[in-house]
Amino acid sequence: MFGPGRRVAEPGGAAVSQTVAGPARAPGADMVIRMPGERIPEYVHGYSERERARLLDQASTLTELLHGDTRYPAGSNVLEAGCGVGAQTVILARNSPGARFTCIDVSSDSLEAARARTRAASIENATFQQADVYGLPFPEASFDHAFVCFVLEHLSRPREALASVVSRLRPGGTLTVIEGDHGSTFFHPYDADARRAIDCLVTLQARAGGNALLGRQLFPLLSEAQLHDVVVSPRMVYVDASRPEWVEGFTRNTFTAMVEGVREEALAAGLVDAAAWQRGIAGLRRAAGADGVFCYTFFKGMGVKP
Amino acid sequence: MFGPGRRVAEPGGAAVSQTVAGPARAPGADMVIRMPGERIPEYVHGYSERERARLLDQASTLTELLHGDTRYPAGSNVLEAGCGVGAQTVILARNSPGARFTCIDVSSDSLEAARARTRAASIENATFQQADVYGLPFPEASFDHAFVCFVLEHLSRPREALASVVSRLRPGGTLTVIEGDHGSTFFHPYDADARRAIDCLVTLQARAGGNALLGRQLFPLLSEAQLHDVVVSPRMVYVDASRPEWVEGFTRNTFTAMVEGVREEALAAGLVDAAAWQRGIAGLRRAAGADGVFCYTFFKGMGVKP
Repeated sequence: MFGPGRRVAEPGGAAVSQTVAGPARAPGADMVIRMPGERIPEYVHGYSERERARLLDQASTLTELLHGDTRYPAGSNVLEAGCGVGAQTVILARNSPGARFTCIDVSSDSLEAARARTRAASIENATFQQADVYGLPFPEASFDHAFVCFVLEHLSRPREALASVVSRLRPGGTLTVIEGDHGSTFFHPYDADARRAIDCLVTLQARAGGNALLGRQLFPLLSEAQLHDVVVSPRMVYVDASRPEWVEGFTRNTFTAMVEGVREEALAAGLVDAAAWQRGIAGLRRAAGADGVFCYTFFKGMGVKP
Repeated sequence: MFGPGRRVAEPGGAAVSQTVAGPARAPGADMVIRMPGERIPEYVHGYSERERARLLDQASTLTELLHGDTRYPAGSNVLEAGCGVGAQTVILARNSPGARFTCIDVSSDSLEAARARTRAASIENATFQQADVYGLPFPEASFDHAFVCFVLEHLSRPREALASVVSRLRPGGTLTVIEGDHGSTFFHPYDADARRAIDCLVTLQARAGGNALLGRQLFPLLSEAQLHDVVVSPRMVYVDASRPEWVEGFTRNTFTAMVEGVREEALAAGLVDAAAWQRGIAGLRRAAGADGVFCYTFFKGMGVKP
């Protein structure tokens, strides 16, 4: 869903080798967006069923927070760019039953999972198509609205991706973008090793050409994309012991699991030693304890094409 | 309002000397809460009119975000512990015109300012009394409700202060606490020197016996105070160029001004050199630019006395 796993591999330049050198089984690796025709790196096929389940669980836990205010009018054509395994697609399509969703992803494996997922959910207003966000196979102004979730943070050229999506919007159409921001994380009790473990994710994602601090940049990014009436709202996940379902569903099984997922890569890259890593994970688990508190902020931005 | 300036000096122990060694003209120094009968350090009287105006401006900018959901029933007796110059008092008393507020602070200068402020605002339901939060001159169960805002973060014994306030609540009464958390700050563009300048505030506040990261701890603190039905909600100030009044009122004139206010202390303490400090302030100012974004989170907690 969010995290360093959902990498983009791009032809030419440093991003490719960094990506290929990246995590082999990182969470979310199934949600990779890549250039068309490019060799699909080994790791794209390396995700486990458990990882896929985790990704989907994460979306259902965060559904109301992130998607509760996204409703598209009946009859509208909506592009979902980077649908991954369809976790968001199911939510979007259910919340706007009269809209038609065209969902693209560069990974055929992800699309197959997304198709199965929406079939199982009896979703009938979403179609899927293998495509790359940089080279969308649709004429200009094809869509009334577009939706991009947990995608830009993995791209080395987020501005180009946005320009590509915006060009397919009709005038007056809207773009909605949701991204996380690992730098928004803070917790109690404070733990320097836990902080360092999170920083490993940020570093690994940067080395893979992405940006784990992208959420905070949505306003300038959407403004630079020539959209009007840009509004960005933070969606903070605040978790304390009074919210046991969030302690379990977010702090432990989403965020801490995501950090744990890059252990091997962080160690291999020499970003941290095994003992410090173990202390860091223990620190994150303490933040899920009875007197612990955990905070993470997603950002949701919207703008209108002139 | 919030920041390292509102220090508590406590008799005995390291906190006293650290406090006395603290900022001479820090913003908010007028809002100090101290032990009764204690020598008032020089700096308590060192605040400027400009600083006082800044503090009050800050409250009115943040009023809706922080206080919009605090309303006390007509006829209720409310204790405001640590009222400072009355910035919150005016808001509280206006929002709950039928409630009676008893507002205490250890500083007679602050109380004088608070009295003038409420008189000027034609507030008639607030009375002021010089008192210390650790030794409140009221019988147990004197109040229906209590309100504590930007106080605990400056105390070396926040649990004792809470216990003291809670003991004056009747069974079924509520305690409301609002605190900032400097560790919640993040911004765009990222700037390591700006981050370091903020860390100077955290360090200086810790050396003075306070805790600039206290906001995130409200849930465990209120729970340990034996309150029931504890609910904590984050109040994030999210600022981008679409909100020019917040860029000016919060990012520049509140947060950055607060950081700038500890320059001399940070340099004297050797926490940073002058060049890095200057770069850090420039970094914060960039976050208030056209493509900048700034985020800070306050926490508001409430609990019920059994």
